Amino acid sequence: MKDKEFKKIAIVGLGLIGGSLAWALKRSKQVRNVFGVDTDEETIEYALRKQIIDEGHTDLSRGISDAGIIVIATNVGEIVKTAKAIIPLAGKGAVITDVGSVKGRIVRDIEKVLPAHLRFVGGHPIAGTENSGVRSGDPGLFKGKRFIITPTPKSDPKAVSKVASLWKSAGAEIHEMDPGEHDRIFGFVSHLPHVVAYSLVDTMLSAPDSETLLDFAGGGLRDFTRVAASSPGMWADIFIVNRENTLNSIKRFKKSLERLEAAIENKDPESLKILLSRSSLARRKFPK
Amino acid sequence: MKDKEFKKIAIVGLGLIGGSLAWALKRSKQVRNVFGVDTDEETIEYALRKQIIDEGHTDLSRGISDAGIIVIATNVGEIVKTAKAIIPLAGKGAVITDVGSVKGRIVRDIEKVLPAHLRFVGGHPIAGTENSGVRSGDPGLFKGKRFIITPTPKSDPKAVSKVASLWKSAGAEIHEMDPGEHDRIFGFVSHLPHVVAYSLVDTMLSAPDSETLLDFAGGGLRDFTRVAASSPGMWADIFIVNRENTLNSIKRFKKSLERLEAAIENKDPESLKILLSRSSLARRKFPK
Repeated sequence: MKDKEFKKIAIVGLGLIGGSLAWALKRSKQVRNVFGVDTDEETIEYALRKQIIDEGHTDLSRGISDAGIIVIATNVGEIVKTAKAIIPLAGKGAVITDVGSVKGRIVRDIEKVLPAHLRFVGGHPIAGTENSGVRSGDPGLFKGKRFIITPTPKSDPKAVSKVASLWKSAGAEIHEMDPGEHDRIFGFVSHLPHVVAYSLVDTMLSAPDSETLLDFAGGGLRDFTRVAASSPGMWADIFIVNRENTLNSIKRFKKSLERLEAAIENKDPESLKILLSRSSLARRKFPK
Repeated sequence: MKDKEFKKIAIVGLGLIGGSLAWALKRSKQVRNVFGVDTDEETIEYALRKQIIDEGHTDLSRGISDAGIIVIATNVGEIVKTAKAIIPLAGKGAVITDVGSVKGRIVRDIEKVLPAHLRFVGGHPIAGTENSGVRSGDPGLFKGKRFIITPTPKSDPKAVSKVASLWKSAGAEIHEMDPGEHDRIFGFVSHLPHVVAYSLVDTMLSAPDSETLLDFAGGGLRDFTRVAASSPGMWADIFIVNRENTLNSIKRFKKSLERLEAAIENKDPESLKILLSRSSLARRKFPK
């Protein structure tokens, strides 16, 4: 019988992403020991009870020294700090990786402090729901979804391929990208829509008769703003860590909005129809 | 055996809404003759074949003279014109009603030209999908959904209760509202989100590397912009007919967006978290 591909993988932060990854790896049977770290005792207990992890601890200093790969799955705002805490504890040759929705600054900051005996490769699984926490975890969360791996010229090719293999075991498709390019793209396709969704709900809340508006929010608005129910702390971090790209995409969005606004202002149904048709057509071609 | 509640109902415009209403009424068995009018011959044939209507015609002048209720289910931009074409054809005492997503201007314009022997009551069923056409029709489309009825001081109470009964037969819950109030509310909760969704897709299309952005649109963006796939012609009409309210809601939305933008600009995670939490909490309380 073929030996398992991985010996010990430590996942630091058993939230929706970390918990689902642990679970997927357990199910894949490619890892001898899926080790979980979380500051919340109940989370560890739950993950053990549900067999999402093999072992776990609330103390980072317990159990990661012999992990071959250490996955940082904390909130974006905590990743660099967590990496700095892991560095003195990790064993020689260990590969550190993360799941942050922002890559440029995180990859740069971690590479800056990485000692020669450790490896780091950034990553971002394109999966998630508006829910959070290990209790929302799903071992199939990454199945068929993209995992963006963001190596740099400083990355060790072996470490890159180990991280890629790990995510393949969780069911993901690997897509390589420059960290800065990643942030530009996701500034547009993910961070901007979240800004917009939060702003849409805020528009209703700030209106004089917000109660009435919310009562009629069941229809159209509900679909649009599903994501505005996501974790505010997580998104505040993402917007600030990817500040430049987020602001740039907001600026471009405002231009598109103002073009539409002008066509309505000018009672110009023809140019309005052209504008809307262009978007409608493109929308119908979005990948599933 | 109790007689059917309605004798003959004519539905003018067998699109998603008109077709679904016809179908729901057929299924309700409360109408002796569900009569459909549509300029498209294939639509009439399809509706007859699927038993969505009892009878139908492409010519408005054929078959609506003995209808007790005439439902105008054309695009918002065509409703007043259609009403004007129906008026000389309708029989004494007939009740005309519509399903337009905008009410103020439509109700006002129709009341202005309505002769004394006819009745008019405006309405708007809060149901629909991003698809259009009779082939997307669904007899359960209005089940448990709200039908906003917008009578004015000029409306005949008997006509109001007939229209309400009709929609109850289709499964809807009746909600009465002033036409202007309706347009203000739906400017916020429906027209604004559509403007925003179209603008979001337009932002991607206008970016220098739109191809790459669209390739990654599968995740978050897809959910946000489902409605941007809706019929451009229909929405161009809605935005222009409800111009003032749409522009007002866009103005307020820009304020909310700029508040969020400023918090990101100022790298102010605390006020950002407060802003996002407020929206997140409200979103979780949206009615289903």
